[in-house]
Amino acid sequence: MDILARVAQLRAAGRSVISLCAGEPGGGAPSAVSVAAAALHTAGTPMTYTPALGIAELRAAIAGHYQRWYGLEIDARNVAVTTGSSGAFLLTFLSAFNAGDRVALARPGYPAYKNILRALGVEVVEIDAGPDTRFQPTPVQLDAAVREHGPLAGLMLASPANPTGTMVSREELTALARWCATHSVRLVSDEIYHGITYPGPDAPDPRGVCAWEVDRSAVVISSFSKYWGMTGWRLGWAIVPDELVEVVDALAGNVALCPPAPAQLAAVAAFSEASYAEADAFVAEFSRTRDYLLANVGRLGWEDVAPADGAFYLYAGLGPAMDGFADSAAYCSALLESAGVAVVPGLDFDAVGGRHTVRLSFAAGYDAVQEGLERILAFHDSRAGHLPH
Amino acid sequence: MDILARVAQLRAAGRSVISLCAGEPGGGAPSAVSVAAAALHTAGTPMTYTPALGIAELRAAIAGHYQRWYGLEIDARNVAVTTGSSGAFLLTFLSAFNAGDRVALARPGYPAYKNILRALGVEVVEIDAGPDTRFQPTPVQLDAAVREHGPLAGLMLASPANPTGTMVSREELTALARWCATHSVRLVSDEIYHGITYPGPDAPDPRGVCAWEVDRSAVVISSFSKYWGMTGWRLGWAIVPDELVEVVDALAGNVALCPPAPAQLAAVAAFSEASYAEADAFVAEFSRTRDYLLANVGRLGWEDVAPADGAFYLYAGLGPAMDGFADSAAYCSALLESAGVAVVPGLDFDAVGGRHTVRLSFAAGYDAVQEGLERILAFHDSRAGHLPH
Repeated sequence: MDILARVAQLRAAGRSVISLCAGEPGGGAPSAVSVAAAALHTAGTPMTYTPALGIAELRAAIAGHYQRWYGLEIDARNVAVTTGSSGAFLLTFLSAFNAGDRVALARPGYPAYKNILRALGVEVVEIDAGPDTRFQPTPVQLDAAVREHGPLAGLMLASPANPTGTMVSREELTALARWCATHSVRLVSDEIYHGITYPGPDAPDPRGVCAWEVDRSAVVISSFSKYWGMTGWRLGWAIVPDELVEVVDALAGNVALCPPAPAQLAAVAAFSEASYAEADAFVAEFSRTRDYLLANVGRLGWEDVAPADGAFYLYAGLGPAMDGFADSAAYCSALLESAGVAVVPGLDFDAVGGRHTVRLSFAAGYDAVQEGLERILAFHDSRAGHLPH
Repeated sequence: MDILARVAQLRAAGRSVISLCAGEPGGGAPSAVSVAAAALHTAGTPMTYTPALGIAELRAAIAGHYQRWYGLEIDARNVAVTTGSSGAFLLTFLSAFNAGDRVALARPGYPAYKNILRALGVEVVEIDAGPDTRFQPTPVQLDAAVREHGPLAGLMLASPANPTGTMVSREELTALARWCATHSVRLVSDEIYHGITYPGPDAPDPRGVCAWEVDRSAVVISSFSKYWGMTGWRLGWAIVPDELVEVVDALAGNVALCPPAPAQLAAVAAFSEASYAEADAFVAEFSRTRDYLLANVGRLGWEDVAPADGAFYLYAGLGPAMDGFADSAAYCSALLESAGVAVVPGLDFDAVGGRHTVRLSFAAGYDAVQEGLERILAFHDSRAGHLPH
């Protein structure tokens, strides 16, 4: 967040800054959603409280989405509409875990998981997930974590993951779910980047594998923010196992009352054919940018580049580019000040290995990424002259 | 919530039901807000993440509102825009209290305070606040609470209160704030019903007294939901003391990312002259309904009617109308089934004294309240024939 503030300062001072920080697409909501929202407000539709878990029509539409993408039959009763996936995480953690419980998650990972869990008094067990395991946790690592820390209450999984973009395969997810079942561990599956995926032509699960395909006691969390580009609308959902529906409902009523009504009413239109087509066009554009990036990242000298199976992030070790910098934060700061390119230091996602890594978001688009890459190269070249060899 | 579900069932079955349950006005947002929202969506304004504490323009407009209503100079830096007042409660409780802390609040009171606090591991100390203290806590009661339970970390105050509508005067608020300062207790002041008030012609504080007028270490919580009728939009705010701004900012980023962007952008228009005038017209209509209700409630035989200084609730003891009923829930259930009138049993707000009380919301409007009152009278008359005397 310091980086974002500095970007704003530099831009306000007239500097040209390429920001490759943003965890959000810039394209906005599908047209049908914006049109629906405008019509609702024009008609003066009263936006009163909705049921705590959302309006019936939207819950049904979300259930239908699981049929479309995964061939999954889901009862709308198990769909909890939430205030962004943030709201879903909070409700899930409050309902599935108690203070003092242990929850495992991959490091590097999205920092809010840890921060929310800790704010609720839950002990976070970080699984060191590097290039060897494609940045995802494995049953072997979970066994080791239990030996070291004691029994776990939960496993927080993200596929595609932030910051690495890596995904678990059906086999890997099945093995993890089986491990969770054996150890009475609740699996929480963050699937907010599903659909923003770059499968090969014969990939068996082009949108990602939904945890409910292999384990209906998992909590699945997703969102309108990424695939549909509706970040600021704050609308997400959780697929909640039967035994948690009631407690999630009660908690939602107390903690949030209901998700934003205008967003709920408009978001029904996200499940139209036209909206899927628009979202897929954005994904195709991400894919083009990703291809460019993967073809050119080698020129930067970065190492251990994560596979970027999905989402819009490239996570990489800085390699020789780190020379002369204390850590990734120092590198990112110098890159921003000297070259006007903002990327996020890996330290934001991994307090250990993140000293040597960065996350580059290609959500900013092809041109920004191309220009950013050239600037980074020039930055490295300019530094090469000043460094001892 | 059982009552609301039953209302929906009865209506679906074709029954005429007067619902005097709702904690929300039905008039909707000010026109300027709806117009602004429609225009934003029509223009395709991208609704991306905003800063965690809200957009600068809205924070400044909220600060200006405190100048307008209370003559208070507030720095926009101290304004945290939140996802409804619910979001403000959560952030405030997380940032100001730790698990194991004790927080006092009035009984009867809004149940979500208790439920959120307990979900966060905070011990709730209920202050028995009845007609003698106009349903508000007093320093004498707080002293007694400390003697009985030990030191407090916080005092949750609501004025106008839900379910009673009673308000604290400037003198009472000053005394409570002084007590808090003396005892190192954080005052959290729920002011979401400010502006929906029924002052006499010479009342010194017609909108309510803001806790920051007497104590800038208090957290003040308010909302667009009630005075501006924007319940479903989920937009509120907290006025946060300097020493808590940073922690609230960090927590907000993790727990919520940001409040809903479309609502933030549109809500700036809530502070226009036209919007204030529209909101005040709704308040005038509430006032007319309240006058009718207060003039006629005596016919019901209800007792200890709370003063209804503000908000849109009448809280009362059932008195002889309880005859033959085990508790207020049984009374409310019979009233709904027999007479098609829904009011909320006091048990929802007070597990002790609430066995004999009900909350009647007059937000439903004059006609609904008039018809509801006649139905309740007829219900009482019909019961009188069946009861032993």
